[in-house]
Amino acid sequence: MENFTGICKVSAGITIKCRTKLLYLRSAALWPYWFETLKFFNTMGYLTKDKLVIVGAAGMIGSNMVQTALMLKLTPNICLYDVFSAEGVAEEMRQSGFDDANILSTTDPAVAFKDAKYIISSGGAPRKEGMTREDLLAGNAKAAQELGDNIKKYCPKVKFVVVIFNPADVTGLVTLVHSGLKPNQVATLAALDSTRLKSALAKHFGVSATEVKKAYTYGGHGEKMAVFASPTTIAGVKLEDIIENGKKVNGKGLNAKQWAELQQDVIQGGAKIIELRRRSSFQSPAYLAVKMIEGAMGGHVFNYPSGVYVDSKKYNHVMMAMPSFIDKNGVNLRPLKGTKAEIASLEASYEHLQNLRDQVIGLGQLPKVEDWKTVNKNL
Amino acid sequence: MENFTGICKVSAGITIKCRTKLLYLRSAALWPYWFETLKFFNTMGYLTKDKLVIVGAAGMIGSNMVQTALMLKLTPNICLYDVFSAEGVAEEMRQSGFDDANILSTTDPAVAFKDAKYIISSGGAPRKEGMTREDLLAGNAKAAQELGDNIKKYCPKVKFVVVIFNPADVTGLVTLVHSGLKPNQVATLAALDSTRLKSALAKHFGVSATEVKKAYTYGGHGEKMAVFASPTTIAGVKLEDIIENGKKVNGKGLNAKQWAELQQDVIQGGAKIIELRRRSSFQSPAYLAVKMIEGAMGGHVFNYPSGVYVDSKKYNHVMMAMPSFIDKNGVNLRPLKGTKAEIASLEASYEHLQNLRDQVIGLGQLPKVEDWKTVNKNL
Repeated sequence: MENFTGICKVSAGITIKCRTKLLYLRSAALWPYWFETLKFFNTMGYLTKDKLVIVGAAGMIGSNMVQTALMLKLTPNICLYDVFSAEGVAEEMRQSGFDDANILSTTDPAVAFKDAKYIISSGGAPRKEGMTREDLLAGNAKAAQELGDNIKKYCPKVKFVVVIFNPADVTGLVTLVHSGLKPNQVATLAALDSTRLKSALAKHFGVSATEVKKAYTYGGHGEKMAVFASPTTIAGVKLEDIIENGKKVNGKGLNAKQWAELQQDVIQGGAKIIELRRRSSFQSPAYLAVKMIEGAMGGHVFNYPSGVYVDSKKYNHVMMAMPSFIDKNGVNLRPLKGTKAEIASLEASYEHLQNLRDQVIGLGQLPKVEDWKTVNKNL
Repeated sequence: MENFTGICKVSAGITIKCRTKLLYLRSAALWPYWFETLKFFNTMGYLTKDKLVIVGAAGMIGSNMVQTALMLKLTPNICLYDVFSAEGVAEEMRQSGFDDANILSTTDPAVAFKDAKYIISSGGAPRKEGMTREDLLAGNAKAAQELGDNIKKYCPKVKFVVVIFNPADVTGLVTLVHSGLKPNQVATLAALDSTRLKSALAKHFGVSATEVKKAYTYGGHGEKMAVFASPTTIAGVKLEDIIENGKKVNGKGLNAKQWAELQQDVIQGGAKIIELRRRSSFQSPAYLAVKMIEGAMGGHVFNYPSGVYVDSKKYNHVMMAMPSFIDKNGVNLRPLKGTKAEIASLEASYEHLQNLRDQVIGLGQLPKVEDWKTVNKNL
């Protein structure tokens, strides 16, 4: 197909190629792609025209999210909000040639949030080397409260909000409570632990990450995450069989000690990036957060776990990573399955998140749990 | 089309929609899109499988280029090269879930350049506040010489190289001479001046950048650029008519003084970004450079001017922005047309570039012009 640069050039050899390929057109399996193409024409290539607000747009994560959203053609209506001016970022985007996009930068929340339909917020302080996510708690809980208040005040009809500033499970929860939104309308970035786990397993076994299936972590984002590896397979081989029964993939095994070390590496994944880059990770959280919003906009369904508000008998009144997906209905829970050890690990994570939540209640940035309904009737 | 999230759901209402859309399939105008879709299947969604090397991948521009290239699905084989380790960037990309990509990071040029088919180099020192591009000359000319040598040594069959470190016209020239490549195989980033001009005009008139046509700059990238605005139109109105005859667009005119100021703003565009962001621009050069390589890979043709090697009677033995486009044949010149004033401005720019070239010859990083053929028989 090297010869097709857009328009079918008629020549003997290529005509034959065309005919062969035409048979392809009839395949039912390809219908989704035709519809994607048709959808493209309906929106001039954008997934939606709804207003997307990037909060913290002047920062490293925020500015990357702006570019990512434009490159993925999510919407032409994008607003860059930051307490520091993000005009430099807006100018860079205009100068990149995203000509049909309407790129606005503002430091005024009234302008930023007015009529917003989608929001991604990285609008907290960044994590510095040596800091745990929890160290950031006090300042970022306040930023989350402001975000929730701004949503309630300026865009109560927003469709979906992604919160990614740390500790994300807590800032997402604070945002949800104060925003008045429904639980399926707010999610936090949790996928990074799962992609780190997948990537570490792929590296260990020397296989493509596409060969690592169902490697997910739930619970807290960070040191207290719960690894759910009982359904994980590497190149079709169950990870459990590798760890417990000495099976090998690509000539490589993984014993219990190595597995514990690998999990520890995943837990320290963020710190490792800081060590390697001399700055905290920004490209991976930015990309994944925008992919979450893409799911909510009706694009590719986002299939990694997200931090979601849980309100079951066992886990309730916290936000934490759970088996879930994001589509145009928002964030949707999947059934939770795990071994006894995995569930125990999730329970420990849940307890940790309850403690963090209670700290924030103590700080006055969340009402007492029994009063949440008075602030947000959807809880 | 909101109801189609990938698979056609069979229901009465939607079936009717399907039929309406099917008529679309027959439109000849849509053929290019079907071919794009077919091409997608042939390469698993990537434009090519050829190895792409990002030089300077640990830096702000380099790391953005890696992400941009992966997001644009240029190739799954991407190598991150830097004298500082770019492993942190590679890890971020793996952790972004680009699972089918083969992302390698190395500090060894032999590993990096071996069998490379496409290269983008941002591998120079960045421009600091207050520095002109020329201040960077000495150090970056040396980096360009090394790049050329590495190409000649490790990947003489490379298809296309984009050089973007400043002063790009000179570093591109040094790379070309030492690499042994043909002139149509090396281009430098020059589009940013044109996109800045377009963006500034759009802002002044309060129109979409899509309404600003044929606003290009040629010659040097930076203070000595030559603005070619005689063919420029704003919302269909000739810019000349606005400046000289007082015509208005959107109720706004542009007199000669304002026009001179606007051009000055464009010239200072890079410095303005440094002022706004407290760092030099990185997103726009990264994105545009990757779009140049996309053109060379046979994707969307790159239609902004590039810095190209010129060897005409009038302009020769320098690299400078010229009317050009990049497609799978490399960088191709378009005819140059301009008013007397525009041509005079280009000549001044050309003289400036000759001086820079001669400085580099003086530094010993380029042979004397008459000896170029002994280093590169394609010149």
